[in-house]
Amino acid sequence: MGAEGQDSGLDLAGPSIGTTGEFAVLRQVTARLPQGPGVLVGPGDDAAVVAAPDARVVVTTDVLVEDVHFRRDWSSAYEVGRKAAAQNCADVAAMGARATALVVGLSAPRDLPLDWATGLTDGLRDESARAGASVVGGDMTRGERVVVSVTALGDLEGRAPVLRSGARPGDLVVVAGALGTSAAGLALHLRGDAALLESWAALAAAHRVPVPDYAAGPALARAGATAMLDVSDGLLQDLGHVAAASGVDLVVDAAALEPDLERVGGAAAALGEQGWDWVLGGGEEHALAATLPPGAPLPHGVRVVGRVVAASAGGGVVTVAGLAPVRVVRRGWDHYAR
Amino acid sequence: MGAEGQDSGLDLAGPSIGTTGEFAVLRQVTARLPQGPGVLVGPGDDAAVVAAPDARVVVTTDVLVEDVHFRRDWSSAYEVGRKAAAQNCADVAAMGARATALVVGLSAPRDLPLDWATGLTDGLRDESARAGASVVGGDMTRGERVVVSVTALGDLEGRAPVLRSGARPGDLVVVAGALGTSAAGLALHLRGDAALLESWAALAAAHRVPVPDYAAGPALARAGATAMLDVSDGLLQDLGHVAAASGVDLVVDAAALEPDLERVGGAAAALGEQGWDWVLGGGEEHALAATLPPGAPLPHGVRVVGRVVAASAGGGVVTVAGLAPVRVVRRGWDHYAR
Repeated sequence: MGAEGQDSGLDLAGPSIGTTGEFAVLRQVTARLPQGPGVLVGPGDDAAVVAAPDARVVVTTDVLVEDVHFRRDWSSAYEVGRKAAAQNCADVAAMGARATALVVGLSAPRDLPLDWATGLTDGLRDESARAGASVVGGDMTRGERVVVSVTALGDLEGRAPVLRSGARPGDLVVVAGALGTSAAGLALHLRGDAALLESWAALAAAHRVPVPDYAAGPALARAGATAMLDVSDGLLQDLGHVAAASGVDLVVDAAALEPDLERVGGAAAALGEQGWDWVLGGGEEHALAATLPPGAPLPHGVRVVGRVVAASAGGGVVTVAGLAPVRVVRRGWDHYAR
Repeated sequence: MGAEGQDSGLDLAGPSIGTTGEFAVLRQVTARLPQGPGVLVGPGDDAAVVAAPDARVVVTTDVLVEDVHFRRDWSSAYEVGRKAAAQNCADVAAMGARATALVVGLSAPRDLPLDWATGLTDGLRDESARAGASVVGGDMTRGERVVVSVTALGDLEGRAPVLRSGARPGDLVVVAGALGTSAAGLALHLRGDAALLESWAALAAAHRVPVPDYAAGPALARAGATAMLDVSDGLLQDLGHVAAASGVDLVVDAAALEPDLERVGGAAAALGEQGWDWVLGGGEEHALAATLPPGAPLPHGVRVVGRVVAASAGGGVVTVAGLAPVRVVRRGWDHYAR
């Protein structure tokens, strides 16, 4: 179209994607992307072709917007790429599947440094590789802000997908991964105190680059998980989705989350915030939460944090047992909440 | 993240996505999306699951940015949805495949009218249905400008994918669909003259909503197409991709494109522009261009527009034969070209 996107006016030390040109950028980006054995046609054609061995494909998409989901002064391009891949691959894992391929849409101003585009690519590539997937294609276009759109495909390896709707009374509620660290990191970045950021560097990093336990998804599926999702909106809100979809109530045992509280407790004290807010309500953690029949084997890295009970009134209620009465300010994340 | 996206400041007659809330919008949007028989898990979980009958899946992604690819004062939300689906499904068709499923990422300001989001959904749904696909999932997030990211999946139905690299000397160059109409429509919209827009309403509409011949993709594959792509950057530039990837040269016969020139000739004269610029260089047309062995049956709606010749010097050269010497101003579309 004819209308012009505006540049963001940054000074450049090196070439930008605008001065390099769309096709030259795509060539440089594509050259950084190794293709796994399941990729039958990689980047460079109208579309890619990926193996789907059991004749089904898992598909999920997530969009990251500059100054909404990341800030270029907080996160490197590499970290944004890691995070964009991670949140999509976590969704694939939460179905009990293994990620196979990603496609990426990048909208960016002309003056985006070429290094930023290649850094993003490297981050997408490395996190995809951690999940077992290849970046097989993409699209690049102009836009005022950087917007990274990722779609991930996955392979269920013959298993049934694990939905949100299968939890049954008597099941255990389990989690793979830490809770609250991303929210703690966000709070540290928002405060912007360099000394605090240094003291709690691991928490800050957890916000910039979540590190989901991808293997836990298929492992939980093999163990018989009756429901599963990834913790993207906050534990209580996400468990609420499971409870509502399954027509059950859930009881979370606060004592089981003490290690999470301890992990963020120092930062919470330093910032004058409540660690429980982060542990129970923090989004973008991308831990996996699931329900397992009692007696099912607990996969490596998976811990019990609660239990499924019969619905009190239609289901959907999540209760925290054993929690001292603290105020839970933010129970989750609505992109349009004020 | 904590930073706030800004609203665009439009007055609203009805509810916006911000006042409605993310989850309520998603419920309303999802309720408008019927799911075809190949959808094993539809919207509402961490990911969808789609059938891939021949154990392969075609995947492609495209991003549409407000004021770069569409303008809300030119196009209705429904038209933007149609176009977003069309350009992705055309990429799937250009592999010789049938589109099966779409996922959609929408980034939008809080004050986007709810009607706009549902109109977009209806457009995506209807164009997907025209291609044989279902919209199976998506993501919605805040952003200053509307950005629509679509990923389409496709089924090769047991056939080999048709790449850009298989054209051989002696093959015919063929096209399914009109050329130049989208570029003519863009020029009419840029001029903004209401009387001209009314006189050439079909051309204006062709810019807002391309109507690819999806069936021609699989039909050309069955007919033995040796190379194929969709005309998104302009016929000469896109055929240049085929020529370069195949190591051949192509000769386009201008006489074969006279019907396209006639279709846009009146609008070109009225605007004082060159119709050939649009026919040979106009992007976003989403016609399919392919190469076919001589003697191959021509599928319905497919016409011969040229021939493949041996490479003069490495290949990649596209020549137009029989064209009176007119100036071809814009040979294609680079999102970062000045």
